[in-house]
Amino acid sequence: MAAKRKQSKERDVRYMDIQPTLLKDYSIQGKHLIDGTWCGEGESYFEVLSPVNHDVLGPRFLEASGEQVSRAVELAHDCFLQGEELSIDRRAQLLDALASALEVCQEPLLACCMAETAYPLPRAKGELIRTIHQTREFAELLREGSWVDARLDTALPERRPLARPDLRSMLRPLGVVGVIGASNFPFAISVVGTDTVTALASGCPVVVKGHPGHPGTCEMLAEIVRETLHQLDLPQALFSLLQLMNYEVGKLLVSHPRVRAIAFTGGEEGGRAICRIAAQRDEPIPVFAEMGSVNPVVVLPKAAERNGSRIVEGFLQSFLLGGGQFCTNPGLLFIPETKAGDELLLSLQSRFAGVESPTLLNHRIAADYREGVAARECLPNVDTLRSGVEVSSSSGVLPMLCVVAASDLTPTLLTEVFGPFSVVARWRDMEDLISAVRKLSGQLTATVHCSSDDTADCDELTRELQWRAGRFVMNGYPTGVEPSYAMHHGGPFPAASLPHFTSIGMGAMKRFVRPLCYQDVPDELLPRELQDSNPLGLMRLVDGRYSREGVTRPLN
Amino acid sequence: MAAKRKQSKERDVRYMDIQPTLLKDYSIQGKHLIDGTWCGEGESYFEVLSPVNHDVLGPRFLEASGEQVSRAVELAHDCFLQGEELSIDRRAQLLDALASALEVCQEPLLACCMAETAYPLPRAKGELIRTIHQTREFAELLREGSWVDARLDTALPERRPLARPDLRSMLRPLGVVGVIGASNFPFAISVVGTDTVTALASGCPVVVKGHPGHPGTCEMLAEIVRETLHQLDLPQALFSLLQLMNYEVGKLLVSHPRVRAIAFTGGEEGGRAICRIAAQRDEPIPVFAEMGSVNPVVVLPKAAERNGSRIVEGFLQSFLLGGGQFCTNPGLLFIPETKAGDELLLSLQSRFAGVESPTLLNHRIAADYREGVAARECLPNVDTLRSGVEVSSSSGVLPMLCVVAASDLTPTLLTEVFGPFSVVARWRDMEDLISAVRKLSGQLTATVHCSSDDTADCDELTRELQWRAGRFVMNGYPTGVEPSYAMHHGGPFPAASLPHFTSIGMGAMKRFVRPLCYQDVPDELLPRELQDSNPLGLMRLVDGRYSREGVTRPLN
Repeated sequence: MAAKRKQSKERDVRYMDIQPTLLKDYSIQGKHLIDGTWCGEGESYFEVLSPVNHDVLGPRFLEASGEQVSRAVELAHDCFLQGEELSIDRRAQLLDALASALEVCQEPLLACCMAETAYPLPRAKGELIRTIHQTREFAELLREGSWVDARLDTALPERRPLARPDLRSMLRPLGVVGVIGASNFPFAISVVGTDTVTALASGCPVVVKGHPGHPGTCEMLAEIVRETLHQLDLPQALFSLLQLMNYEVGKLLVSHPRVRAIAFTGGEEGGRAICRIAAQRDEPIPVFAEMGSVNPVVVLPKAAERNGSRIVEGFLQSFLLGGGQFCTNPGLLFIPETKAGDELLLSLQSRFAGVESPTLLNHRIAADYREGVAARECLPNVDTLRSGVEVSSSSGVLPMLCVVAASDLTPTLLTEVFGPFSVVARWRDMEDLISAVRKLSGQLTATVHCSSDDTADCDELTRELQWRAGRFVMNGYPTGVEPSYAMHHGGPFPAASLPHFTSIGMGAMKRFVRPLCYQDVPDELLPRELQDSNPLGLMRLVDGRYSREGVTRPLN
Repeated sequence: MAAKRKQSKERDVRYMDIQPTLLKDYSIQGKHLIDGTWCGEGESYFEVLSPVNHDVLGPRFLEASGEQVSRAVELAHDCFLQGEELSIDRRAQLLDALASALEVCQEPLLACCMAETAYPLPRAKGELIRTIHQTREFAELLREGSWVDARLDTALPERRPLARPDLRSMLRPLGVVGVIGASNFPFAISVVGTDTVTALASGCPVVVKGHPGHPGTCEMLAEIVRETLHQLDLPQALFSLLQLMNYEVGKLLVSHPRVRAIAFTGGEEGGRAICRIAAQRDEPIPVFAEMGSVNPVVVLPKAAERNGSRIVEGFLQSFLLGGGQFCTNPGLLFIPETKAGDELLLSLQSRFAGVESPTLLNHRIAADYREGVAARECLPNVDTLRSGVEVSSSSGVLPMLCVVAASDLTPTLLTEVFGPFSVVARWRDMEDLISAVRKLSGQLTATVHCSSDDTADCDELTRELQWRAGRFVMNGYPTGVEPSYAMHHGGPFPAASLPHFTSIGMGAMKRFVRPLCYQDVPDELLPRELQDSNPLGLMRLVDGRYSREGVTRPLN
């Protein structure tokens, strides 16, 4: 592993030598990237407003047309089937080169992203660096190679009544992937985020619909991909960027017969619409939609007693991260109706009064937030608490808490408001708490704060929470989605559209591939992953046992 | 492994001791099994006709009502969430006991199945024995345990800027599974086939809709499950059987909010309908539908020259297996327009004239077959060839071949006719062949017959076939779906509704489970699969590396 890492570092250095000026003095054009060419056709356009002062940022962005969507997809498909899969080495090289190019271009990328999203430097930079690391991790995963789940069942020619053939299987790319990026992760879940990187790593060409909230950042990222493909002499049709806000045109990407899977991160309404379109196709395709959730955090009585002030600090920090604009934002806090619970709430209220008011990503998101908050504060039996600090920017909003009895939780209060909003639910006893938890739909995360003497009677609670969640957190906070091997960022519907798959972390590689079984295929015609001698040294499942050994074929 | 197998054998023997009379002199009741009780309420019913002489077989079978569907599902859900997961040992024990009970009951099961399906003894018995073996294999898989894909990313408390929490994940059961069995596999893909067995093995309760073509066999199998659950003192709500033909009632099973996944094997029309219902739910659920295909078999010129007669024999054997009623039946044979190809076709035609006419599973399937065949023989440019042997039974049909130029293949000719029907397409050159292959939708299998000097120019052909198929066969035949580790029985839509999953083989365990991630959960609250010391000795992914070692937690 160490040797490999060194080798890829060497490659990075060489790469950085040849493009130190990439994106230097780049000016945004507002075009689409199709097959390596920036296309300026079209008449419709949209503009981007600064979330701080509503000034128009950059040029007009041309709206992609249906014809452009088709062209990008058809070219991607031809490129997939003609050269089909890039070799593993070439794919890993592409990922490393993309990571290095992102590194070189940090300055212009961050400047553009911060202007478009109002993210402060640490937030934007942290995400970009994570994206760079993650891209390199996927390159390592490719080079190690065992992720393809190679399985070999050796032939049993003597078996009676029927001989068993030689059967081998591994994961193979699905085909063209449509990526519909998120508003809140302009680097990690956008043009070159986990979706695009895992699709390219799997051998799938990508057509990206840029997010209209940060189209300049999208364009710069696409220019990086274009230049990297060019430097590595790879087919440009592997990657296209289309900018668009028009729902009908976006629909064409999801319904194009050559598109084989869709990755989406965003709100439930959008995710549901995409799933519906995909299901109505003549050949339905999988949609990997991550649609957020309220991410319940339950405080148990002893934990409230012992760690009350730490819980308040931790909750507020998690709640305010990125202006509350995380999919895993804790939007529902259960506090017990005990003395310690009362104190915890008081402390939360007093600390909350002084929190800063964030500027949200754009005016649409700010408007949705204000509307969501207004719909909740007028509900009966709800006490609301706004942060007292004045809002100065155009997309600035006031953080808000709603305090309510757990038994008064309604479907509206259990639906996510994207932004710095949380419901605090007071619970009386375990029965009260569990019947509130049972009202929850699928969640990305569920968290319990408990002390060692709390755990005795919470088996049922744990079961109900775990059954609803993709990730179960103890004595922590849901924000901070570690892109590691064990991370699961998904969960039962509507947290994710398919509970089997994660959109963040190394497991995200499983989305754009499917097993293909090879029966009695001679060694020289098999992919190297499945060859007798195991030339890549993979961990494989041989007759049901994990092994890095080669296999021998019985003589016929 | 050897020791474990011995242990489970011992358990089997003990189990067989206590129920040697199970199903002895059993008479079919025509009722539903809900929560361990045979329910005789209801007024609608259906009858089963012998496929041989159309006599009514057995009693009337009561149609399940919507209320009964709801009750079975609700009870299953309560049972899942209350006890949630059975321990691994209990689940493995259940599977072993089911296998032994099936073994004990072979005689009545086979008699009933043969009467209902017209399958000859070797066909019925072969399937039952395979089902028994497969059930035991899944018990072994559970005991070995590594299938849960345990992943551990150890905490990095010193990491800057942010510490990494302890993250662990493993596959956990989805909840209640609805199983809609197949007509053509009354044992392997029905009441206690791979769907039910993998659901129960995963910890999911099952509600089965019995197939109306073999309701007596379904009832006997359900009685075996009931008795086995009773013997093992397991909750009866884990398993229900509902008999029904009414589409609206069947719909309720797919749309019930407590059902979390559907397994289905059958025709494309039915599969599409189920997918649509599942997609229209408020919380859409995954449908694992296997919908068959035409399973193209391509003969290349040199193979036709060298192995012509062997190919004809193998093809006919595969084609006639089970009366042509296999999902992997070779329904499309590409023969080159060469001298050797002409000879191959002549030989096929002469051998075909003497094949036997099978009795199909039931009169509905026979009627569909006759209709499908009639719609094809009147197509222009199609030469048809029926088997010349007289049909005597009520559901008996004449096998048929359609011979057509590859360039004249129409969508109708590329759509499966369930039964002993195949299209023989003559191809002129590689271009002609590939453009015909490009007209194919997703396939369970694709086969190539080639000789060593054929392989030079068939890269593109191979790519096009592999991209469309779940299994790629060389110099063999698609029938014979080995339920092993590397088997993939699925493929791009419409072969399967989700190309990631197989419905046959050990990989079928992946359908009714989803990853759940545990963050900073203390060792004693984790499932044993994820505990520090690796008490089950599983192969796990620890910080991205395969290992059976335990882990130590850093001191905080």
